Amino acid sequence: MIDHRVSVGDIRNAADRIKGYVHRTPTLTCSTLDNLAANPDVGLKLFFKCDNFQKVGAFKIRGATNAILSLLSSHPDRSPSEFSVITHSSGNHAQALAYASQALGVRCHVVMPSNSASVKKDAVRGYGAMVTECVPTLQAREDGVNAIISEMRASGKEITFIPPYDDVRVIAGQGTMALELMEQAASLDAPLDILIAPVGGGGMLSGCAVAAKGVDPGIWVVGAEPAGADDAYRSFNAKKFIPSVDPQTIADGLRTSLGEITFPLIMANVDAIHTVSEVEIVRAMKLVYERMKLVVEPSAAVGLAVALYGSEFKEQIRILASKKQKQDLNVGIIFSGGNVDLANLSTLFDIAGNN
Amino acid sequence: MIDHRVSVGDIRNAADRIKGYVHRTPTLTCSTLDNLAANPDVGLKLFFKCDNFQKVGAFKIRGATNAILSLLSSHPDRSPSEFSVITHSSGNHAQALAYASQALGVRCHVVMPSNSASVKKDAVRGYGAMVTECVPTLQAREDGVNAIISEMRASGKEITFIPPYDDVRVIAGQGTMALELMEQAASLDAPLDILIAPVGGGGMLSGCAVAAKGVDPGIWVVGAEPAGADDAYRSFNAKKFIPSVDPQTIADGLRTSLGEITFPLIMANVDAIHTVSEVEIVRAMKLVYERMKLVVEPSAAVGLAVALYGSEFKEQIRILASKKQKQDLNVGIIFSGGNVDLANLSTLFDIAGNN
Repeated sequence: MIDHRVSVGDIRNAADRIKGYVHRTPTLTCSTLDNLAANPDVGLKLFFKCDNFQKVGAFKIRGATNAILSLLSSHPDRSPSEFSVITHSSGNHAQALAYASQALGVRCHVVMPSNSASVKKDAVRGYGAMVTECVPTLQAREDGVNAIISEMRASGKEITFIPPYDDVRVIAGQGTMALELMEQAASLDAPLDILIAPVGGGGMLSGCAVAAKGVDPGIWVVGAEPAGADDAYRSFNAKKFIPSVDPQTIADGLRTSLGEITFPLIMANVDAIHTVSEVEIVRAMKLVYERMKLVVEPSAAVGLAVALYGSEFKEQIRILASKKQKQDLNVGIIFSGGNVDLANLSTLFDIAGNN
Repeated sequence: MIDHRVSVGDIRNAADRIKGYVHRTPTLTCSTLDNLAANPDVGLKLFFKCDNFQKVGAFKIRGATNAILSLLSSHPDRSPSEFSVITHSSGNHAQALAYASQALGVRCHVVMPSNSASVKKDAVRGYGAMVTECVPTLQAREDGVNAIISEMRASGKEITFIPPYDDVRVIAGQGTMALELMEQAASLDAPLDILIAPVGGGGMLSGCAVAAKGVDPGIWVVGAEPAGADDAYRSFNAKKFIPSVDPQTIADGLRTSLGEITFPLIMANVDAIHTVSEVEIVRAMKLVYERMKLVVEPSAAVGLAVALYGSEFKEQIRILASKKQKQDLNVGIIFSGGNVDLANLSTLFDIAGNN
């Protein structure tokens, strides 16, 4: 029986482990967005954790680096070149695992759907990983991974599967973002009252929630999800796992279902999940470009969209502010990545209209 | 006879004056861009001064704020509401002067060409300035300003013209960017060998050159200009003022000619002016979005374009590195602003092709 629990201690260990391999990204503020997020009776001071500035352009490098370093430390007698890792992914996790493998001297295989953008396949190969293409179904991806694992083991070589999110080492790595954000907000004399993180497979949200509650059990932790891919919202409220069926959202990083490990961690450590529409996501994203002069991907703007437009969220903060007897609340928001297709940006912004 | 000299002392005074009214913007680095800028025998370490994060999205607020505060301090017996300022501009200077006027409690008039984007006219009005429209010629703009000045003076009211760049208070304000950048690079143990600033009217380049040479007379100061608007390049090399005729460049902030005050300051303090093509400007801009995850306007990318693609520049740095007996040079680059039309961004990036 594998232990699927993740503690704040695991996340602190991950932070020590990955230090020097990943960036400690800055936390930025924007008074214009604070004004736009203000409510009649509660002001919000927003603190943005900029993992769009992270290596490979997204937070995924944190979990990937922690997973590989954990693997290496479990066999300190072997050299990194004796290790191989494998995953299947069409997005940021593939690039992150390939980059981390190259940096740490480990071999890396990635099974990618044949309809992945060639720029993404080239990037993964550019980091020295071996790419195997498969037909674009989850079954084919898993079959591809299992075939390579069997082949390697048949020839006496060890290889370790690193899942994109449903893995305690990956979750602990992603949680380091929240540790840093809480320290950075506290150093600005603004300890966080609320933390908002996007939720797709739940690796980031579960890790950040464990970290945040571990540092301050009183913090209110919110998952932010596109209404068009609201499996986490429905699972959370039904208190049982409901998979994602035909998710429709431009936030391509958030189309996956929760996992067996991430779902119980979210149930235990998250206070609410709020959803936002596609137009709200693009409006929030456009404001980040216009007002903060930052490039973020659609998935990264979902947290800000909740703070600006989420009606359930606005109701919650009224209750929270009244309970805490505060007129202003400090809200941490995760900008998870900045890997956006520049060729489609104008088309994307058209969705927002003139706001 | 008016004194048209600007000293590093004037720029230090401007820095003290505008402190608290404008942002001290961060200086960022990017190892991927350092690698792309490296030459066979000379490495470059790039330090980007991010005035795209400045208030109103561009450096122009520095000069406008210094000009108004200088005006107020010359009549300490009067209240700010007794002062009026006026300018003509279709771009960042109009918004900057309007914003600074509102912040300092001064009245502001802006003469804007009737073909200015309505979003820009609305923004200027949004900062409380009075907008007068005119036909889109320089003559009509100047006539519009003079008519308002005459009218105000006829009714016994004082009003001061604040030019967009050819003004010692404006130049001193823009120079504060270079003071900050040199301090920030030095605090990273990387004193600058080279400073690159874009050049249009020359307010920023002249101010930054005076500041840089005042702090370190050995620094090499470079003006970066679009080849399609190369009046500064031609004037500098001919050692006489040659106006801009029908400039053609997407770098809309750099279409103006040098001024009577900025040109002599540039001749005295700048070491070279290098030009780059439109494709080079867009390629550099695209790299900033892709690799640094920052939103910059085309004018702001011209300095990086010189560092990446300028053939005369590459020749110069070989000589400079050899003279200094250094293998790596520290290069400061000004990102002047981030006010770009998001609706046209994809079309713009198409110019760059796949790089």
